[in-house]
Amino acid sequence: MKPTPKKAIVLVSGGLDSTTTLAIATSQGYACYALSFNYGQRHLAELEAAKRIAAQFSVVEHKLIHFNLNEFGGSALTDTHLIIPTTGISNDIPITYVPARNSVFLALSLSWAEVLMASDIFIGVNAVDYSGYPDCRPDFIHAFENMANLATKAGVEGRQFHIHTPLIHLTKAQIIQTGTQLGIDFSQTVSCYQATSKGLACGVCDACRLRIEGFREAGLIDPTRYII
Amino acid sequence: MKPTPKKAIVLVSGGLDSTTTLAIATSQGYACYALSFNYGQRHLAELEAAKRIAAQFSVVEHKLIHFNLNEFGGSALTDTHLIIPTTGISNDIPITYVPARNSVFLALSLSWAEVLMASDIFIGVNAVDYSGYPDCRPDFIHAFENMANLATKAGVEGRQFHIHTPLIHLTKAQIIQTGTQLGIDFSQTVSCYQATSKGLACGVCDACRLRIEGFREAGLIDPTRYII
Repeated sequence: MKPTPKKAIVLVSGGLDSTTTLAIATSQGYACYALSFNYGQRHLAELEAAKRIAAQFSVVEHKLIHFNLNEFGGSALTDTHLIIPTTGISNDIPITYVPARNSVFLALSLSWAEVLMASDIFIGVNAVDYSGYPDCRPDFIHAFENMANLATKAGVEGRQFHIHTPLIHLTKAQIIQTGTQLGIDFSQTVSCYQATSKGLACGVCDACRLRIEGFREAGLIDPTRYII
Repeated sequence: MKPTPKKAIVLVSGGLDSTTTLAIATSQGYACYALSFNYGQRHLAELEAAKRIAAQFSVVEHKLIHFNLNEFGGSALTDTHLIIPTTGISNDIPITYVPARNSVFLALSLSWAEVLMASDIFIGVNAVDYSGYPDCRPDFIHAFENMANLATKAGVEGRQFHIHTPLIHLTKAQIIQTGTQLGIDFSQTVSCYQATSKGLACGVCDACRLRIEGFREAGLIDPTRYII
């Protein structure tokens, strides 16, 4: 009799990083529960991608949580009055930063993990080829993990939550190589901050620039469907 | 010219504790921004109470964030298939515990605080006369504060978030006395886990029991509107 696989929550946005994260968690033998968020982001093409990807990887369950983070504003990703930068990646934290987004995402995933009696949560944050978001750094992840174990009944009872960040120290090229080796069809993923309703990428936002450069460095053909 | 008051986010559920917390933050001179959540709880009478209370305290703004935490289930407060205990408070963490609820609430308040450039967040958690929820303890609050400063652009830029828990070491009687001194009309608040749509309290759930005992110990008349 095969042992029951360990359950893991995997945050799946529909982008390149989270898809690779799901592929890694699956390859490690976890029974994966995909979690996506409709938080008032500009476009929903990435959620359509998330649905396709969750189905492709035969996750046990895929949940979508809605919450109106755009009620707060303050980010070009949730406030359509603000303009997505397209002139190149700067050294500052850009206006596409969504305040405390990964804290909210991980807190919601923690809630589901506790109900499922899962101890493992996978998130595709990356602190190498990234936009400088503070909630993608190892220090933040460790602080969240510590908090999670104090926040929950499971933690009090001795279960230790583990936030897995398999991409955190990889370059974008390494992420693309890893995903390719695991059989991902990256044409199905949407990273662009302002993708069209059909999921076509702009090619000039920070997310597109990092992705294009990643494929170039990896020496692989970029299958992304661009608008131009 | 009067100095501009400091902004604070205050989590307002419509219950006795959060109302007292709002009264304390107001008395300390903060410009208060009230935040409430419709997370799929059983009844919305507490949100009606939250609206009345926010108006009474003339908060600068009152926001309501919706999210379907009942999608996960696992708590009698969000899953109507589970029964609210009414036979008395036990020593175990009860089924009314909502997994990771305060982590989600505080993460969302952190998002708004960052947009408002506020450093202060007030939450009415209590670790004395409470139901044993792990996310009401000082250790959890400290861990969240630490995480918040690593999670945010504001934290990276040197702003320190402070999670204020003015009730954490008070008994329910002391909370009631404090609120009464600050002029709260507790008949307007709803603590009951299964209040009617008109906000009438059952008198027998853990929240009602703690509240009834609090008024008794405080030597004050309980103005709560009970169903019986």
